Formats: sequence, C-alpha cells, structure tokens
Amino acid sequence: MHLFYTPDIASTIYQLDEEESKHCIRVLRLKLNDKVNLIDGKGGFYLAEIIQDHPKKTILEVLEAQKDFSKRNHHLHIAVAPTKNIDRFEWFLEKATEIGIDEITPIICERSERKEIKHDRSNKILTAAIKQSLKAFHPVLNPQISFKEFIAKAKTDVKFIAHCEEGHKGFMKDNFKPNLNYLVLIGPEGDFSIQEIEYALQNGFVPITLGESRLRTETAALQACFEINYLNRP
Amino acid sequence: MHLFYTPDIASTIYQLDEEESKHCIRVLRLKLNDKVNLIDGKGGFYLAEIIQDHPKKTILEVLEAQKDFSKRNHHLHIAVAPTKNIDRFEWFLEKATEIGIDEITPIICERSERKEIKHDRSNKILTAAIKQSLKAFHPVLNPQISFKEFIAKAKTDVKFIAHCEEGHKGFMKDNFKPNLNYLVLIGPEGDFSIQEIEYALQNGFVPITLGESRLRTETAALQACFEINYLNRP
Repeated sequence: MHLFYTPDIASTIYQLDEEESKHCIRVLRLKLNDKVNLIDGKGGFYLAEIIQDHPKKTILEVLEAQKDFSKRNHHLHIAVAPTKNIDRFEWFLEKATEIGIDEITPIICERSERKEIKHDRSNKILTAAIKQSLKAFHPVLNPQISFKEFIAKAKTDVKFIAHCEEGHKGFMKDNFKPNLNYLVLIGPEGDFSIQEIEYALQNGFVPITLGESRLRTETAALQACFEINYLNRP
Repeated sequence: MHLFYTPDIASTIYQLDEEESKHCIRVLRLKLNDKVNLIDGKGGFYLAEIIQDHPKKTILEVLEAQKDFSKRNHHLHIAVAPTKNIDRFEWFLEKATEIGIDEITPIICERSERKEIKHDRSNKILTAAIKQSLKAFHPVLNPQISFKEFIAKAKTDVKFIAHCEEGHKGFMKDNFKPNLNYLVLIGPEGDFSIQEIEYALQNGFVPITLGESRLRTETAALQACFEINYLNRP
C-alpha cells in the first residue's frame, strides 16, 4: 500500500499539500475510496481512505490509527563527522534509518575536511528512508556543531568514542546493558585528534573498537549502528 | 604508506605495469628508494622499495613478506540478487569488503529486474576496497548464475536463506557455530518467490530473519555480512 509522510496530522481528516496531492493522483493514479497508509514521524501509523481525489488538494480520512508503531526498545544517537564526499554521509543516513537510529548529529572535528552539510537535504533523505522502510518514527537530525561544544554538553547514559589511536579499547558488548540511551562518536577521515580523544575521555566517553578492519567513516558509523541494534535485540 | 595490488607477484623483484608505474611516479610522485606496501590478494602482504623509478616501468624490490596477512577465521559467501539500481549492488561490494567477506555470487532470481552485472567493473570495486581497507585477501566474485542452478550445487557447512515470507524463521545466532563456512542467500527487490524458498529449504537451507526492519536488498546483504562477522569475533 502507498504511504505518505504527514508530520502535521492533527485530526481524522487530512489534506495533502499540492505536491503530495499531485503525486497521489497524477503519479500513483490513486482514486476516490483507495486506501493509503500515513506515518507522522512521531510513532503514529494510520490507515486512511481518499475521500476527495483532487490533484491539488487530495483529502484523506483516517480509518485506523496506531500509536508507537514499531517503537524501538532503546535510543541510539550517533554523532559523526560528515564525510568529504557527501554521498557517503547521505548513504549512512539512509542505511542507519533502515537498520534503526533515533538521533544523528553532524560534528565538525579538527581534521574534518567538510565543514558543513545541507540540513534540509539530509533530512529529506531520512524521510525517504522511513517511508521506504516503513518506520513511523522519524530520526532527529540535529544541526551541525563543533566537536568541542558537542562533547561539553553531551548527557547520555552510555557514551562511546570509536577511534583508531593506540591504547586500551574494548568492544561495545563488554559490560553492555540493553534498553538504555547510547551515544557513539565517529570521527572524520584521518580520525579524531589526540586532543579530541583526551577531551572525550575526560567527559566520560568510553573508548571502543569496532574490530580489526580499517573502516571508512560512514562504514564505521553504520557498524556502530548495527552493533547497538544487535545488542538490543529482544 | 602507499599500497599496490600485485596479484601476479612471483619473486622479490616486481615490475609495475605501465598504468601503475605512471600512477606511482607521476601521480603519487614516489622516487627511488621510497617504500611501498604490496598485497597480492591471496594473503601476501609485502614491504617493497622502489629500485627503478621509471614512469612506465617502475621496479620494486621486496624487503619483507608476510603470508596470511589478517587471515579471517571463517569463510563467508553471500549470494545476492543484484539490485535494479547497480549503485546499490556496488555499494554492497565495497562495504562487505570493508567489513569482511570471502566470496560473492550474483544470483538471478525469478523476480530479479536486473539480469546481468558487469563482472570486471564489480571486481575492480572489490580491488579498490581491499586496498582502501588494507586487506591482503581479495574476495572472490563468482560469475552470475541462475538461482536454481546455484542452489542445486551449493555445498557449504551452513546455508541460510533470508526471506520475508511468513513461516518460522530464527536468527542466525540461534545454534550458531563459529569458524565454519557460511553461505547466505539474499533475494531481489520483491523477495524470493514461494517456489524458490521451497526449493532452497528442500536443499538444506535454513530460513532466517534479519530482524523486524524492512531492509533493501543491499542493506539485508550487508546486515547478514555484519552478523556473521560479529558472531565469529574471537
């Protein structure tokens, strides 16, 4: 069944905006009385029927509503340095959404070659991915922030930093407790600087390894996402 | 240190071909007596020195050689239907190589929209990925094959099929034994047909789920790759 993202749904009657109406009627060729699914990005999952098939103002009536649809049993926040090649970062956004993520913060680090991302464009990728993978919760994409500012205010139950420098590092699964809030830091191409790692450790981050392989930034971020989801499997 | 892929290395003296010589001397601007690393794709990892810095026929002398460099403790073979959009399949090739894979077979299924891949092009992506992620073993990319032909001749210790149809499916970790040979089947967009699933089960494949999320083909293949590697962590 076709699915629409309706973040501002507030009653049982919902009018699609002009673009979505056109998509619904002209592209998908849906008609009066056809059924569609809606997600609101906050856990709401709806079954709705087309009660006016106007190509500029399509109106839907909600028939059934579920709250907390496929609610996750933990909260995962990944703070990652956007890659030089933005495709790689965008790919991470899509894949992490499919696998399961709640919050993403682009962090600008000492060795970051990319200093900014297009927030709206990135957010649209997340929206497309929740529609494709049928998720009712929209991951939160925070504004980009400098590493130092981010670390100073990071308050999460469990805080990890994945880095490639020498020193003792465990796996995330060591002493792992499920169903908590997790924050994982992933550095840029060229890794975090020694000073950044020190600063994170002083602020309660636990150094971890993602295994023996040398991973690209976006692969490391996805590996972290896999592991936290895996460790929280019911 | 710069790294070259030298699959045909046979003695302690090695001449780079014209393209690689040019890359070495003109692009990377390496000079006489500079050191480089070599990988042969069969586990050999070498330290070598440039003893002739000719831009068309650069000659290297091997100083140190390691066998079975970062040898994996299991054998993972993923047979996956190439995606309609080839970028997604190629992305899988790169990421699986980073995370760890030994063998890949493109399988053409009943519902496959894509009926062929460019083998050489795909293989080059694997080569680039082993260089980038510093792996001395080159994953084997088998020629594409039809689902039915593949299943009939698949002989592996542990055989899984990931599908989305109803019916009992466990996780790969259930009754998992490490350090074996594994084969995982991943279907096309639209999944395997009921007949294909039946045929795989008759041939000893164990049906598995990769979790609750609705994953794209390439994401499912990578999730399987992640899980098998994770379950084999020493």
